[in-house]
Amino acid sequence: MIAHRIMDAAGEFTHTAEPATERPSGSTRPRVRRADRWLAAHVQRLIDPAGVRLELWDGSSTYGGARQPIGDLVVSDRRTLLGLADNPDLYFGESYMTGRLEVRGPLEPVVEALTKASVGAPPSWRERLRLAFGGHNSFTSSRDNVHHHYDLGNPFYQLWLDRELVYTCAYFADPQMSLEEAQVAKLDLVCRKLRLRAGETVVEAGCGWGALALHMARHYGVHVKAFNVSREQLDYARARVAREGLASQVEFIDDDYRNVAGEFDAFVSVGMLEHVGVEHYGELGGVIDRTLEPHGRGLIHSIGQIPGLPLNAWIVKHIFPGAYPPTLGELTEIFRPWGMSVLDVENLRLHYALTLRHWLDRYEAAADQVRAMYDERFVRMWRFYLSGSIAAFRSGDLELFQVVFNRAGANDIPWTREHLYPLQG
Amino acid sequence: MIAHRIMDAAGEFTHTAEPATERPSGSTRPRVRRADRWLAAHVQRLIDPAGVRLELWDGSSTYGGARQPIGDLVVSDRRTLLGLADNPDLYFGESYMTGRLEVRGPLEPVVEALTKASVGAPPSWRERLRLAFGGHNSFTSSRDNVHHHYDLGNPFYQLWLDRELVYTCAYFADPQMSLEEAQVAKLDLVCRKLRLRAGETVVEAGCGWGALALHMARHYGVHVKAFNVSREQLDYARARVAREGLASQVEFIDDDYRNVAGEFDAFVSVGMLEHVGVEHYGELGGVIDRTLEPHGRGLIHSIGQIPGLPLNAWIVKHIFPGAYPPTLGELTEIFRPWGMSVLDVENLRLHYALTLRHWLDRYEAAADQVRAMYDERFVRMWRFYLSGSIAAFRSGDLELFQVVFNRAGANDIPWTREHLYPLQG
Repeated sequence: MIAHRIMDAAGEFTHTAEPATERPSGSTRPRVRRADRWLAAHVQRLIDPAGVRLELWDGSSTYGGARQPIGDLVVSDRRTLLGLADNPDLYFGESYMTGRLEVRGPLEPVVEALTKASVGAPPSWRERLRLAFGGHNSFTSSRDNVHHHYDLGNPFYQLWLDRELVYTCAYFADPQMSLEEAQVAKLDLVCRKLRLRAGETVVEAGCGWGALALHMARHYGVHVKAFNVSREQLDYARARVAREGLASQVEFIDDDYRNVAGEFDAFVSVGMLEHVGVEHYGELGGVIDRTLEPHGRGLIHSIGQIPGLPLNAWIVKHIFPGAYPPTLGELTEIFRPWGMSVLDVENLRLHYALTLRHWLDRYEAAADQVRAMYDERFVRMWRFYLSGSIAAFRSGDLELFQVVFNRAGANDIPWTREHLYPLQG
Repeated sequence: MIAHRIMDAAGEFTHTAEPATERPSGSTRPRVRRADRWLAAHVQRLIDPAGVRLELWDGSSTYGGARQPIGDLVVSDRRTLLGLADNPDLYFGESYMTGRLEVRGPLEPVVEALTKASVGAPPSWRERLRLAFGGHNSFTSSRDNVHHHYDLGNPFYQLWLDRELVYTCAYFADPQMSLEEAQVAKLDLVCRKLRLRAGETVVEAGCGWGALALHMARHYGVHVKAFNVSREQLDYARARVAREGLASQVEFIDDDYRNVAGEFDAFVSVGMLEHVGVEHYGELGGVIDRTLEPHGRGLIHSIGQIPGLPLNAWIVKHIFPGAYPPTLGELTEIFRPWGMSVLDVENLRLHYALTLRHWLDRYEAAADQVRAMYDERFVRMWRFYLSGSIAAFRSGDLELFQVVFNRAGANDIPWTREHLYPLQG
């Protein structure tokens, strides 16, 4: 229930409570009433199986779990308690962010335990209504949603992403790899899966800061048209392609993927599908069908999930408006209506958990700089998001699919996938 | 339209017309009437794009294709012409089988061209009605359906399968492999995908003549319970396991997969799903959920398809009653309701076309023996089936999926798939 669909952790990072932005001082706290105790007991019963203890502002608790609690949620006032009881998916994050709720003990194991206890629970009716009536990705709202997240400012992302600014799941061919190595390994894995050959043309839908487009051009000799609607990312990518002398091979285009024109040997999209919306998958398939040569290959890399539930309400509100990670079945509906064939699916779930672990470590190391750029609330919001995402990928609540496809009946297909593993000895 | 969803070919094998079982002699053929010519012109327009010419029993044709025809369908009487016009999916095969329709020129390229011209065409309403009201796989009819095909007699399959009697898609790690090598390579690929370890327990749903169960026991040291409802296959498998001294590790059980009991480290099913029926996928998922240990891994190997159409009517009537190859999206519905995670999907479509090519070559070499066992109609029926299946896999009309799965949140997963390619240097 609480923290549904967002969290888990390896548990090494220990969160030491920061001064909160809104935490009321002790002297203004109201008396704990009988109704408060009743509500608290209700919440406690829900989180007992996770081994997490709820503590009210007077220090009382009704923890009834079978084992020693792994951590405490310390609630500072009645409003927070009401929010937790009424809509924990949203208010756990909301009250953590503002400091009205503190986690005593390490943050991530607590979040992980709450996630595991909630996996499989049905979404609340509120969630269902929000899914039914909210968040359609028209051209305009797509832009708004993208701006919300990706135009936070390049300096912010530069604090904690790898040096190529790759903001998607890395590929740890060896888990000891550095984040830098694993991101380059991912870029190259994508190229090998696409079987790129020098002189070919590639269209990229949603190119971030341009790392994949530049990697494809430099290492595989292809020509790339890369689409994005984030202005700040595009500015960065254009400056980089000019600086690195690849402008004759890579064009960055400020437009929606639905306006892609031309025909290409390969179609690639890494980390965009989460923002497309299932109701637009047919349209996306149409774009691919229109732009892929008969012999063309494609790859879509996307967060996914098993059950087909809405994303956690807090994540949607504060981090990714309009986002939805599809089930694998939903994902195949991009291809089916257009007679395209799924050749290969790889689930890189644990790679994303490890990627996020690297990001969170770097983020915490840069927390003072983040605080100076924004404020404490922002610091806590982003910590909650990264910790929760580690939990989600480790618990299986979220998955990461790389899907390779081509047209039905196009028979230039390798007999095995050995070519993806060139370093094996 | 004609031959919808069944055929294609590499085109090397040239079919020389055999004496047919029912072909009417020339003297009894009726005059070609105006209505016959009208019907023939209708059929011809449908098959013009495939470059195939329709010839009536008086030698006339209205072929209007843009290129030199690649082959002729020679129709011997009015009944055959009516059948072709009314329900080509069924009657192309029916009349070929009885010899009322002859293919002049090589069989497989003609079948392939007709298949390619028909890919994407909507199924006829007759097909839809058959799908809606026919063929539910109750326990009893599953047995009947299995007996129809798999109890044709071991001596028949021994004529043209590999020496291990593996009647599913082989794995040509190198397309120059022999069929024997490629079937063993498939058995071993399945074991590597399951990451079997000595002493573990495996349940196999639908075990054929037992080759996989024996391979797992001998080469991976596991204990196998293998289920099948084909009596003749089981007798063969039991004799073999006793002869090879593996009876302490492998138990062959005469029962439906729905009655599997116990808990296992791995679940595997190769070539059974096609006979399960989409309406039973939830039940199959429940069996897997009930029998798989928390850390367990599973693999399902099945024919699939892109659009989600019924299998060709002739195939269902004569070869595989009750069979349906699922879309990848339908296949994922085995796992989703039970919180199981798809880790890896590999599409081995062209491996099945090559497997079938080997089978057809061996089958043709043994055609005289088949004729002696059955009759000419049977010889032609099976030739049409094998040729059509080559066409289907080459044209993308059918696919072959190997799907690896485990439980959500079970994190003992290899970081890469390199372990599947141990022979790479």
